[in-house]
Amino acid sequence: MTQTTLRYTGPACPIPTTEYPTIQLAHGGGALSRMLVHRLFLPAFHNDALAVLHDGAVLGAHELARAAGGGWPMQDGGRLALTTDSFVVKPLFFPGGDIGSLAVHGTLNDLAMCAARPVALTTALVIEEGLAMDDLWRVIDSMRRAADAAGVPVVTGDTKVVERGKGDGLFINTTGLGVVPTGISILPARARAGDAILLSGPIAMHGITILSMREGLELETRLESDSADLGPLVRIILAAGGDAVHVLRDPTRGGVASALCEIASDARIGMLLDERAVPVLPEVRGACELLGLDPLYVANEGKCIAIVAPEAQKAVLDAMRRHPRGISAAVVGRVTDQADGRVVVRSSIGDERILEPLSGEQLPRIC
Amino acid sequence: MTQTTLRYTGPACPIPTTEYPTIQLAHGGGALSRMLVHRLFLPAFHNDALAVLHDGAVLGAHELARAAGGGWPMQDGGRLALTTDSFVVKPLFFPGGDIGSLAVHGTLNDLAMCAARPVALTTALVIEEGLAMDDLWRVIDSMRRAADAAGVPVVTGDTKVVERGKGDGLFINTTGLGVVPTGISILPARARAGDAILLSGPIAMHGITILSMREGLELETRLESDSADLGPLVRIILAAGGDAVHVLRDPTRGGVASALCEIASDARIGMLLDERAVPVLPEVRGACELLGLDPLYVANEGKCIAIVAPEAQKAVLDAMRRHPRGISAAVVGRVTDQADGRVVVRSSIGDERILEPLSGEQLPRIC
Repeated sequence: MTQTTLRYTGPACPIPTTEYPTIQLAHGGGALSRMLVHRLFLPAFHNDALAVLHDGAVLGAHELARAAGGGWPMQDGGRLALTTDSFVVKPLFFPGGDIGSLAVHGTLNDLAMCAARPVALTTALVIEEGLAMDDLWRVIDSMRRAADAAGVPVVTGDTKVVERGKGDGLFINTTGLGVVPTGISILPARARAGDAILLSGPIAMHGITILSMREGLELETRLESDSADLGPLVRIILAAGGDAVHVLRDPTRGGVASALCEIASDARIGMLLDERAVPVLPEVRGACELLGLDPLYVANEGKCIAIVAPEAQKAVLDAMRRHPRGISAAVVGRVTDQADGRVVVRSSIGDERILEPLSGEQLPRIC
Repeated sequence: MTQTTLRYTGPACPIPTTEYPTIQLAHGGGALSRMLVHRLFLPAFHNDALAVLHDGAVLGAHELARAAGGGWPMQDGGRLALTTDSFVVKPLFFPGGDIGSLAVHGTLNDLAMCAARPVALTTALVIEEGLAMDDLWRVIDSMRRAADAAGVPVVTGDTKVVERGKGDGLFINTTGLGVVPTGISILPARARAGDAILLSGPIAMHGITILSMREGLELETRLESDSADLGPLVRIILAAGGDAVHVLRDPTRGGVASALCEIASDARIGMLLDERAVPVLPEVRGACELLGLDPLYVANEGKCIAIVAPEAQKAVLDAMRRHPRGISAAVVGRVTDQADGRVVVRSSIGDERILEPLSGEQLPRIC
């Protein structure tokens, strides 16, 4: 076996390796993660579906008929959504869920953010040698409950085992296939000046729950992760708002701040966020102060941002508030006519500042 | 945060944890892996698509219309295939490929084994902190080449970073969506007595290449992994054999022996395998002797087993041999009327024995 066999003759790495010789934890989120996406992945895998930079890819009959050699069996106008996520959350079990339910909810939610109805899930496990069989079962049973509750079958799977010290208990990939209803188009590019920014409920619950466990923080109340399937809430939003619903996004890694910064940047729009209008539970606010965190940047796993035309704002908000997962829904901001890709936040004391995207990952392995 | 929050109240683990308290490397393949599938995953996720135990799930319009709330946008008879795999191969780079090309080929091949034409791929990376940026790029570029060669877009993705010592360089999940042509049905259950078992070429090349690198074995010739997209070969097989092609399987983990044992067991059929007819390169045979391995159990990543009706045997074999990936294709056995789920192997010296499925994983992290 000669070394020449392994010589690489392709194009040089588009990221300067003198500046970034290795992958750091910070590449798992924030600006450095976006650098990987924009400078490595997008140029390599360039295609229309990927370029949209949504939570999942929406595949239409037209593009796909060619790929399938003319045999694409969909009716005209039929669209599928496809989304994938690997989950590495630590610890595996936490109040309000575990890596299994999180993996199901996370992928269901990515489908929901494409306005897609879930059709099937796949799952692939990378297990570290030594994981307790009981823990594996508990996770599988939790995935089953979450998938059953959503009425979505797990149709195929894969299992790999790696040596002790080469993994961390359990990593789970879930991939979701969904159907996008006719006439619905959900895209950052559809946001326009005057649109209302709606948030479905109190933020930062998932991130603070995980971090409190890691830090051994005893919270006075029983805070739980908000991990949940957002599909039912999204269907209510779409039923109430229809085509006036322009953008949907679940603010996971990086929180509400990162989600809004990404949408504003991708769509080249301006936003004004009213910090006082953003619901935060008192115990979450307390923990954030203790940990030195801004709740706007902390991960959620059961909250939804909806950007809707002003004429539909009231109908959508009323509908959200009638759903158990949207009781505290609120208008938290508005799309402005400053088409500069920036989010201005009006703070609780009334001053305004630019909302900065995270440079690195604030909380590694939150999902 | 109280412990009660995390108490588990679901059903007990169906695998006795006194006997199997933790996951072992052997659960990554062979009989113990099948135990996980049959006793944990199948009961938990029970559904028709999963129960087929194919390399991927085939989803028809009928089952899915309900899941999609009546909105399934496929034409009558249209079927999709969905398949997922996580790749943990070690080392990341090897003669004939790397974890990136392997991840693309592996998932394309699982689609091909469902007779599906690939439509889209997703990819999700779990990167260990400290991976060289150049290595990441090289893998991404390799995925791009493999996907481009197959004409399949990578439509969405995900990146997670775990701390140093909590992963092993890079794990890659790829999930594939495909379209199954009308009138084609590929299933273990379709094999019947008298069917010919065809093999597309020399075996054990991938496994021996990986193992030689790990063991620092200097082979005299430049042995390479056979990692390749089997889609074009499968389309030729189907064009030549049509409905007479009953089963397709790529003998990856566990090799030809495990693939045949699984098909025989799942379909409750008997098989006779003629060991002398199985193509093995001399350098692979030599390395297997040196390493104490039976090539029948060593992984392949670019070989295909086709079980076809006797009347189509000649047409399919001739067609395979005209394709670069099928030049050494051979009839290696036959389905017998012993419907006992067992494979009998006639050895090179003429005696017969039962081909045993592997009890554990022979070569961990081969893919």
